Amino acid sequence: MVYESKIDLKVRRKALERLKERFGQIIKDILSGKPPVLEIRKRTLSNTIYDPQRKLLLLGDEVLHRSFLNAGEAKKFMQTVLMASIIYEALKNNEYPTIRDLYYRGKHTIRYRKITSGRIYEENTWDEQKESDSVIRDIEVFIDMLREDMLILSKEKGKVVGNMRIKSGDDIIDLSKMGHGAYAIEPTPDLIEFIDVDADFVLVIEKDAVFQQLHRAGFWRKYRAILVTSAGQPDRATRRFIRRLNEELKLPVYILTDSDPYGWYIYSVFKVGSINLSYESLRLATPEAKFLGVSMTDVFGHKGLGKRPYLSEAERRNFIIKATERDIKRAKELMNYTWFKMPRWKIEIDIFLSKKAKLEIEALTSKGLRFLMDKYLPEKIQTGDWID
Amino acid sequence: MVYESKIDLKVRRKALERLKERFGQIIKDILSGKPPVLEIRKRTLSNTIYDPQRKLLLLGDEVLHRSFLNAGEAKKFMQTVLMASIIYEALKNNEYPTIRDLYYRGKHTIRYRKITSGRIYEENTWDEQKESDSVIRDIEVFIDMLREDMLILSKEKGKVVGNMRIKSGDDIIDLSKMGHGAYAIEPTPDLIEFIDVDADFVLVIEKDAVFQQLHRAGFWRKYRAILVTSAGQPDRATRRFIRRLNEELKLPVYILTDSDPYGWYIYSVFKVGSINLSYESLRLATPEAKFLGVSMTDVFGHKGLGKRPYLSEAERRNFIIKATERDIKRAKELMNYTWFKMPRWKIEIDIFLSKKAKLEIEALTSKGLRFLMDKYLPEKIQTGDWID
Repeated sequence: MVYESKIDLKVRRKALERLKERFGQIIKDILSGKPPVLEIRKRTLSNTIYDPQRKLLLLGDEVLHRSFLNAGEAKKFMQTVLMASIIYEALKNNEYPTIRDLYYRGKHTIRYRKITSGRIYEENTWDEQKESDSVIRDIEVFIDMLREDMLILSKEKGKVVGNMRIKSGDDIIDLSKMGHGAYAIEPTPDLIEFIDVDADFVLVIEKDAVFQQLHRAGFWRKYRAILVTSAGQPDRATRRFIRRLNEELKLPVYILTDSDPYGWYIYSVFKVGSINLSYESLRLATPEAKFLGVSMTDVFGHKGLGKRPYLSEAERRNFIIKATERDIKRAKELMNYTWFKMPRWKIEIDIFLSKKAKLEIEALTSKGLRFLMDKYLPEKIQTGDWID
Repeated sequence: MVYESKIDLKVRRKALERLKERFGQIIKDILSGKPPVLEIRKRTLSNTIYDPQRKLLLLGDEVLHRSFLNAGEAKKFMQTVLMASIIYEALKNNEYPTIRDLYYRGKHTIRYRKITSGRIYEENTWDEQKESDSVIRDIEVFIDMLREDMLILSKEKGKVVGNMRIKSGDDIIDLSKMGHGAYAIEPTPDLIEFIDVDADFVLVIEKDAVFQQLHRAGFWRKYRAILVTSAGQPDRATRRFIRRLNEELKLPVYILTDSDPYGWYIYSVFKVGSINLSYESLRLATPEAKFLGVSMTDVFGHKGLGKRPYLSEAERRNFIIKATERDIKRAKELMNYTWFKMPRWKIEIDIFLSKKAKLEIEALTSKGLRFLMDKYLPEKIQTGDWID
């Protein structure tokens, strides 16, 4: 007796077919006497393009070739085919591998004899997980399917509560009935079925502890929100889940992070995608997500924008943290990203660089949870005081 | 309309009473002309004692005094009373502070005039969060109540699935109906009510990704388990939840970690408590928890114990990671802890130090998830191949 939902079986079949179809071409090539070559879109920085129309980081059209018969490309060719076969076997055997165990599964030493000298050499398939991870990404691009669609699982941090019901596996789950706990989002959020929802917007909070506070105080009930935490830098499942809430349920998405370059980048990953995974932006990013705060202008106010600060001078004195050299370096990097070049972001980054100051969400909570819950958040949302 | 469960209101009342009772003594002292002094049990290493009978790290009887009228103790006295008053206010105002925002709430500069010189000085209440955290711990010891009992919330990583129903807040939650996701344990697990359970044991897994795999493959259904992940070093809520499953539901608890000193320490925190929080062991630790693996003898076998290794030599060659200097240093530290001094642990640590090798759980999964799920885990449990 092994339990497996019908949903997973369907996913397996689809992924198996896709792998067979895309890699089957290599076999056809060999049988017809052609040298086997993989053609894969490049995942390089230079081939990562910000599309201002769609507001997304996307992979460009440059491709790379991996030819089995080219000494410089043979190892990468071998790695790609090896990983594809491991994933194929795992799918067939009803397994749920992680990227870490795919690394282990493929890790071994190949011994070979050089034809010219007759000497025996040894070569490892891969040494570090970053090598095997990169191969998995190549396969995702090559077969145009996310690893989640191949039932490759991973650590997940995202949690959600709110007035909605979903179907996951064979269960219907009421996200408004989680008590003081929360629903931990599954690694394959594409398999979630939205049954019904009664909410006006999605609030995504960087900090798990602040999520706990707002949940416990009934924020999502009172303000008709779906409350999500990414617990730091968002993982793929949380990003996909947010995207689906926005795209399919038409819910506005607001992001709440610390007021510093790392918070800005978290927002940026949600909104336009990440540079490393730009091939996935089309499905993982939420171009309509808004940066709700905490913004530098929330902290310091801004005359030009007619904004008064939410913090008094005394509060700023106690709450503000001095930016580190690393923060400043990061801010300057962000300034160069096209999607941070708009005037509204320039105001934020300029304040940060001149004040060299950052602030955590918890500093707002320390003014009383009611301040965050009943003033700051609803006021910001009602007056449209966000950055798009 | 603010939502608050009746359970939380009851908790607030109890915590408010306790704070009033314990700190009220100071007011009484002042009114009767006595100098106000706090007497708190010391949370020092020297006052942290391993009790071999109860198998727990406990706080000893040494106490420290904080007198308001002693120049060397006045600041600590002030910090303690300040924090107690902040917590008191938060409880009264139906708030759910985090330790981070308690730090912010109390952080300010006190200006005072020296009587002798007439000059004005400035002193910060505290500068770093570790100072305010330490004060919170003192209060926990002083009023003999965990911070969770004062509705101080925190980031939580623990997740659970299995055939049991619990009540949390006003909701009844079926932990066998979480789909592919899981239930994220609340920050105040003492408020959970166990409704019913139909399981034979609890399996706690260090790695979230392995938890995902076993959950998805139906391990807990097939083997009648409650499956929990601590997602790394366990937080307080996960530890308390596990303790309650063991103590109240009489379920055996097995811990599965990586095979290295950090994994051993995770087990140790679950079992005997942590050195920093020894005053909480009585409620957070699970003395009956067993270390199921991955043990060094699982990896290498052991003639004296009649154990054959679970890994072949070829597998060891591919899967084993070389221990770092830091790992070795950590192992040598652990050797000095009383509860690691038993012969069975000596075998483990000796193998580690002689082989200088460690292994991740994922290395077992890479032999096929079925190996971990249908051979390794059930065999180890059935044959009692654990360390107590």
